[in-house]
Amino acid sequence: MVETTLLDETLALLSPPDGRAAEEARAHQDRLTKPRGALGALEDVSVRLAGIAGACPPPMPAPVSLAIFAADHGVHAQGVSPWPQEVTTQMVANFLAGGAVANCFAAQVGAEVMVVDVGVAGDMTGMSGLVARKIAYGTADMTQGPAMTLAQARDAIEVGITVAHGLIDRGSRCLITGDMGIANTTASAALIACLTGKDPAEVTGRGTGIDDAVYTHKIEMVRRALVVNGLDGAGSRDALHVVAAVGGLEHAALAGYLLGAASRRIPVILDGVIAGAAALVASAFAPVVAEYCVAGHRSAEPGHAAALDVLRLRPLVDLELRLGEGTGGLLAYPLVSSAVRVLHDVATFDSAGVTDKDAPA
Amino acid sequence: MVETTLLDETLALLSPPDGRAAEEARAHQDRLTKPRGALGALEDVSVRLAGIAGACPPPMPAPVSLAIFAADHGVHAQGVSPWPQEVTTQMVANFLAGGAVANCFAAQVGAEVMVVDVGVAGDMTGMSGLVARKIAYGTADMTQGPAMTLAQARDAIEVGITVAHGLIDRGSRCLITGDMGIANTTASAALIACLTGKDPAEVTGRGTGIDDAVYTHKIEMVRRALVVNGLDGAGSRDALHVVAAVGGLEHAALAGYLLGAASRRIPVILDGVIAGAAALVASAFAPVVAEYCVAGHRSAEPGHAAALDVLRLRPLVDLELRLGEGTGGLLAYPLVSSAVRVLHDVATFDSAGVTDKDAPA
Repeated sequence: MVETTLLDETLALLSPPDGRAAEEARAHQDRLTKPRGALGALEDVSVRLAGIAGACPPPMPAPVSLAIFAADHGVHAQGVSPWPQEVTTQMVANFLAGGAVANCFAAQVGAEVMVVDVGVAGDMTGMSGLVARKIAYGTADMTQGPAMTLAQARDAIEVGITVAHGLIDRGSRCLITGDMGIANTTASAALIACLTGKDPAEVTGRGTGIDDAVYTHKIEMVRRALVVNGLDGAGSRDALHVVAAVGGLEHAALAGYLLGAASRRIPVILDGVIAGAAALVASAFAPVVAEYCVAGHRSAEPGHAAALDVLRLRPLVDLELRLGEGTGGLLAYPLVSSAVRVLHDVATFDSAGVTDKDAPA
Repeated sequence: MVETTLLDETLALLSPPDGRAAEEARAHQDRLTKPRGALGALEDVSVRLAGIAGACPPPMPAPVSLAIFAADHGVHAQGVSPWPQEVTTQMVANFLAGGAVANCFAAQVGAEVMVVDVGVAGDMTGMSGLVARKIAYGTADMTQGPAMTLAQARDAIEVGITVAHGLIDRGSRCLITGDMGIANTTASAALIACLTGKDPAEVTGRGTGIDDAVYTHKIEMVRRALVVNGLDGAGSRDALHVVAAVGGLEHAALAGYLLGAASRRIPVILDGVIAGAAALVASAFAPVVAEYCVAGHRSAEPGHAAALDVLRLRPLVDLELRLGEGTGGLLAYPLVSSAVRVLHDVATFDSAGVTDKDAPA
């Protein structure tokens, strides 16, 4: 008898968004007192959320929650980041104390913040408020072999599913992705190169700020990780294998978080490049998951645009942010709310007695 | 004895933002627990608002008010818009009833909405809640001569100043521009061509949706308006003369609204191309006024980007909106609030005990 895992159960629950509700939303947008299409990309967001909810208008995306998945990366030992690894632990403490930018932006939009240790290298004992789900004290160095075992990757994915389901069970109707982990743009670049087929040099960026020498070295480390793990050539890509080989524990957890939300038909606003890499992983498990996502912003990292292209997502905010934590997703949240609210509040040409130039004669 | 007008008095009050408070904000951003510059364009917004307020951190930009200036355009008679002119009046009624997209977005961000008739062609008798400041029943046709007299232009500007001062006196700490007027993208294109020196074909767009034939005709009408009013050649540009010749009453009022806010050191979030054209007019009176503005969004109209370039403003939202009413400014408001809030809430490296890779040794 084969044991069914939470991941398998979740994948079995996935289905496409409701095309009829989406069409209804598109048609309703055309009846509202504004020129057709005048709300640009926000009309698409409203249509997407109608499809996800299976209703027009869809419910307002509130309450909203941000889960920040924190983890460390063995590849940090290769000198790919100017920040010491203990900054991951320090920033987790900062999130819990409410002092980070993510806390500030969450307060601004009324989002709940949950901080999940899925693989921080430091000892987190006594950190009040932390959701302790540590799977390892950081990943292994992906330039020497797989970053984690398949079992660890699966466990991390299931942490993400459980977190998403828990937030939804407690009432959240919109989730935002958050992440913290020194060196996680390196692992993101490896995942994106592997899952988009692009060269590491095209998708590796300067993360939180590195000079030319470190940047060149970082690209080389991404390339080596792919070679060492047999992911440099063409060929099939098993999602679990890829995330275990060159991902981070937070990437795996985020992929699970997306799958968990999609299985309950709840929209997720993606933050930046780490979320984009995780969405590619989730999408490798089940392509339909991308249809449950909204891209919150486009980060300054070049790999992010490559990931969004493959996922066919258009970012809402484009302000050269390169912070992570969920900050770009939080900034996009009022745009998503406004997009949905249009379907609830705005008068139609008929109801308001406004002449419609495009009305059928 | 020469009588001093409200416009003259307002211009006399203008002075540059406070460079010291702006520098302090820039330095404080570098002490916060995030990589330097990681908030991209939002750091610039926070610095700008510190300079405007003359304090770091600047006060939160709340309460916030949107004033929608409505007016009609004589050039509508030339067939530049597919919408009948009475839609201006109908939309004013829609704003007052709370049914427009601007009302919806204002509700989402908690903004007060004021609707000002500065020159609607229709009879507005009995419209409850309307601020009645009608200067004319629409402008004259700018392709035949000046759209308004210099006295009308000055009166409209002073309506804008008075509205800004009134909102600020009642507590508003951030203003957003709004506009309504069928054919107002045509007048905007004429103002932008005149004040940026660009050819009408470069700055005229399709407004709320016109076909190729009407589009070509619209460019020709902009060109003719400039020629007829002697504004097609190089030469000095008197601000009052320009807005009277080829502007709308709402453009003049909006220019006054910007001057009024700047004279009280209150920031204004600009909406789209109509606001951009009005900001060029205000800037022609006093270039410093642009430093009191934040560009809410970039509209789909080509003239808008040209105006923002000259004003040296970077738009925050870029989602192909082409609605006007203040909708783009309202969508940007949470981004502006979040930018300022960072200076209030976020912990420093020192206070949070986070290692700063760039700290002086």
